[in-house]
Amino acid sequence: MATKTGEEYSTKSQELLKMMDEYSVGVFGAVPSFVVSGKGSTLVDIDGREIIDFACTMSAGNFGHCHPVMTKAVKDSIDTVTLTNIATYHESWPRLAKMLCLKFGYDKAATMVSGAEAADSVCKIARKWGITRKRISPAEVLILGSSENYHGLTTGIWPLMDASNQAEEFGVTSRNITNRNPQTGEVLRYGHIEDYEAVFSQMHGRISAVIIECLHGRLPTIEEEINFAIKLRQLCKKYNVLFIADEIRMGCAKTGKFLSCDWMGEENKPDMITLGKSITGGMYPASYILGNNDTMELVGPYSVSSTFAKSPTANIATLTALQIYEDENLLERAAAKAEGLRKSPRSGNTTMSNMLHAEVPMLVL
Amino acid sequence: MATKTGEEYSTKSQELLKMMDEYSVGVFGAVPSFVVSGKGSTLVDIDGREIIDFACTMSAGNFGHCHPVMTKAVKDSIDTVTLTNIATYHESWPRLAKMLCLKFGYDKAATMVSGAEAADSVCKIARKWGITRKRISPAEVLILGSSENYHGLTTGIWPLMDASNQAEEFGVTSRNITNRNPQTGEVLRYGHIEDYEAVFSQMHGRISAVIIECLHGRLPTIEEEINFAIKLRQLCKKYNVLFIADEIRMGCAKTGKFLSCDWMGEENKPDMITLGKSITGGMYPASYILGNNDTMELVGPYSVSSTFAKSPTANIATLTALQIYEDENLLERAAAKAEGLRKSPRSGNTTMSNMLHAEVPMLVL
Repeated sequence: MATKTGEEYSTKSQELLKMMDEYSVGVFGAVPSFVVSGKGSTLVDIDGREIIDFACTMSAGNFGHCHPVMTKAVKDSIDTVTLTNIATYHESWPRLAKMLCLKFGYDKAATMVSGAEAADSVCKIARKWGITRKRISPAEVLILGSSENYHGLTTGIWPLMDASNQAEEFGVTSRNITNRNPQTGEVLRYGHIEDYEAVFSQMHGRISAVIIECLHGRLPTIEEEINFAIKLRQLCKKYNVLFIADEIRMGCAKTGKFLSCDWMGEENKPDMITLGKSITGGMYPASYILGNNDTMELVGPYSVSSTFAKSPTANIATLTALQIYEDENLLERAAAKAEGLRKSPRSGNTTMSNMLHAEVPMLVL
Repeated sequence: MATKTGEEYSTKSQELLKMMDEYSVGVFGAVPSFVVSGKGSTLVDIDGREIIDFACTMSAGNFGHCHPVMTKAVKDSIDTVTLTNIATYHESWPRLAKMLCLKFGYDKAATMVSGAEAADSVCKIARKWGITRKRISPAEVLILGSSENYHGLTTGIWPLMDASNQAEEFGVTSRNITNRNPQTGEVLRYGHIEDYEAVFSQMHGRISAVIIECLHGRLPTIEEEINFAIKLRQLCKKYNVLFIADEIRMGCAKTGKFLSCDWMGEENKPDMITLGKSITGGMYPASYILGNNDTMELVGPYSVSSTFAKSPTANIATLTALQIYEDENLLERAAAKAEGLRKSPRSGNTTMSNMLHAEVPMLVL
């Protein structure tokens, strides 16, 4: 049995692949190997082959596998208590909420489980902000996205993304949450500020928020991407529209700063941000929303939460991961390595994506 | 500082509560205590008080805290590898997918992270089924829910629930996914088959699926709830509509059978089910969708998945939890305890909800 990369699966792997194909659906596409263990940057598959893991689950596991400090903290948490949130509080949540707010400079944090839930919830809060503060009617309130951005696969936020024909196949479209110009139906192109200027000038009274991933590796230079994000942020200020940076894929040191929106400078700070994926170093699913009181105080009970949100293990994993970045100077070390890589020869055909790969040793999807 | 139950927070707890209120939003409402550890059915709070945990995080932790077999399996997993899915496969997923399909009698499994994601994804698949198999136009395809059911807080599925004024406040309504009669706007009442007969007779050509939680504890007797679910299931058969049982809250042995829909009998088996919340005994967020090839084969790449779906720890936790139910005869033991409780005196004012609480030692929300 050959794979799309042409590599052969072993007999053992073929059996597992057959079992997987027979009994499951829902894949992204992976390398032709069934992993059994991992350590640092090395995985071992069922045939004993070693694999150098450049991807780390699309950078969710950005300390590599089984980081000893993360492993110990999470195991200790699992030994201490199973799950306490909703019915009771766990003592770690207030500490974590405070740490997140102080580190990222926002008033309040909320937490969910998956990244898609955070992106969905931040849009939900932004809609309420638009209705409550900007007095947009509920049926009219708009959230705009951008082409080529990724926010997760749930239906509440799918219309923010380019889903080719999938949106039609699944019947999931929205007139209120979209990465298209609501009047012309054309996609709002990442990097093209004129697309947003056109929509804002016509419809700013209906627009509650714009959500984007601030860096991508899609434009030729990092400066062009930052400039686009800054211009969009300033457009939002001009028209009293919230600017939301979705940092789930692009945050946690993947672009050379902790948040990709940090490149925009303090004066262009987003109104809200989301965090997820790599925020626990791949140890436990957790996602966060950060914002100021003006937006976050609109969240009441039973509107933004989840059974496993604020779970003791999620809290401990996040607290530990944030500490590891500082204790191990990961950003500084990445910058130093990037400097070396930057000096090494490379082809003239360098895209921004390649540059980001070279500038920090963590993967940009 | 007093709580709504009138109990006082200690000074230590008051500090944490103040910190939580200052730096976070998004609560369900919890007992006035900050937990630091737990074992079995007992929690210990920051003041050293012991709390008997009847709730177990709304029954997500249904083996109690720190079950030794679960704890060991999850810790071993964390020691072995961090996160492998998406970029590679982990060997545990094919085994788990097969186990889920054989145990619950479906062709294929898909997995997500949070329960809300599973409910959202199952509706997404059902919409594609309606469009592809039933030839409903994408703009017209309907998923119907029921009053008093709970499917999670994300916007894709929020319109399935009674959200009082929240749907309006957040501007989240849908004409395609709703627990209201699309023609009259009236809520489709749980337990009232006539509400569904009226909608089905008028609009069956547009209805792709109905999603409900089969048991609730809202009607006076368990028989009335089962009868309602069976009648709704038969109505679905009559009109070629998928019947989806959302077992995220009500599954995993909480109603005296493993699935609440098991009470309906094999001949009334749902077309699809969701599992979550307690499926890992509260150890790790994981959710699953099960269905037959007719629906599940509609899932292609990049449509139903998530970074932490199929994570090694999620798979191991689920495999271990399913084994514990069998090894420890949890359903039989619950039935025996229920028998004793059933014979104990109780007031005449017994609701179905109280009965369920008495019949199984696991909590029905």
